[in-house]
Amino acid sequence: MHALKLFGHYDSGHVYKIMLFLELANIPYDYEQVDIWIDKADRQTEFLKFSRNGEVPCLLIDGLPYIQSNLILYKLASLYKIYGGESAQRLIQALEWQFWEANRLGMCLPQLRYAKLIAPDEFNADSLAFLRNRFEVDIAVLARHLSDDRKFILDDKASIADFSICGYLYWADEAGVRLPRQINNWLERISRLPGWRSPYEMMNKASQDTH
Amino acid sequence: MHALKLFGHYDSGHVYKIMLFLELANIPYDYEQVDIWIDKADRQTEFLKFSRNGEVPCLLIDGLPYIQSNLILYKLASLYKIYGGESAQRLIQALEWQFWEANRLGMCLPQLRYAKLIAPDEFNADSLAFLRNRFEVDIAVLARHLSDDRKFILDDKASIADFSICGYLYWADEAGVRLPRQINNWLERISRLPGWRSPYEMMNKASQDTH
Repeated sequence: MHALKLFGHYDSGHVYKIMLFLELANIPYDYEQVDIWIDKADRQTEFLKFSRNGEVPCLLIDGLPYIQSNLILYKLASLYKIYGGESAQRLIQALEWQFWEANRLGMCLPQLRYAKLIAPDEFNADSLAFLRNRFEVDIAVLARHLSDDRKFILDDKASIADFSICGYLYWADEAGVRLPRQINNWLERISRLPGWRSPYEMMNKASQDTH
Repeated sequence: MHALKLFGHYDSGHVYKIMLFLELANIPYDYEQVDIWIDKADRQTEFLKFSRNGEVPCLLIDGLPYIQSNLILYKLASLYKIYGGESAQRLIQALEWQFWEANRLGMCLPQLRYAKLIAPDEFNADSLAFLRNRFEVDIAVLARHLSDDRKFILDDKASIADFSICGYLYWADEAGVRLPRQINNWLERISRLPGWRSPYEMMNKASQDTH
């Protein structure tokens, strides 16, 4: 049994990835919201001590801070030996997809949503077109991978690869992108896992609860 | 002793990251060049069997393929218990920086170099400005991190975090960016490690050798 405290915000799909793991695995944790729409320097002092760049998610495990959503997922899978952490071989397969996410889908989809929903003035048509083009390339790679009979990214069991990659995809509408059929079917399968809730539902609830 | 075969190309800083590990550790490996400037489908059949998206680097370890440069570095560090692989704690610290690289510096700097050196027609002024702005934010984060007395990213010993992050930085000129003093000093320290060679020097040589 480990003491977990998650710092997050309901507008972060990266935070959602971590919550999916914890809620689906039914692991208790404390939650504290950090206002990501104020200057980094103005966020909680305790939080800034732990999160080097003032970013969420930050997870304390027995008092030690972990940052970077994919690193946190990897650490949780290793620690609890589930969702990819069952064996070294499965963990490395999951890690490969997490690096793919960090470098590809995770660097266009969050930005497209941010541009559409939150700060349209920060993006002009050409930089949006650049990001949208990247997204189309990346989502096609993923759709092709999901075109065989597998249920989830690695095999027929959900893993941190799924949690990592799906993080922002439930917000496709908010990002102004359309998803291929294979992607929607896979998101639907994740959403039928016991304990699943949509991003806002899960994260708004966490803000109100004491876990 | 493991049988290693690296598929690479001298224009890839991601390939350079892997070579740095292998050459600095003095680990023997076979090398095969893959032409990354022809269509993916036209690359070597054997290579395409191993590299799902037709991308370099791809490393075969005892016949098993590994892709994604950061995953390969992680696997090598775990396997040889060096450059971050000495302990679980050090490995996770390195992994955190690798995820940062994948999502930040690794998604602007290679693109800026590609735009300047290889395909200027694919980028317009605004998407270049977007990438350059990202680069400035990211390089400032790294420069701040390197502003204390540490010699390398984690501590006073080089690790896969250094190899991952420095991959494209030796090509700053080719990407049309300038580096802060802290970054240049750190790159200089890496370049004094026994076995270090510059990207083109190391990769061109590999293309000609049989290792």
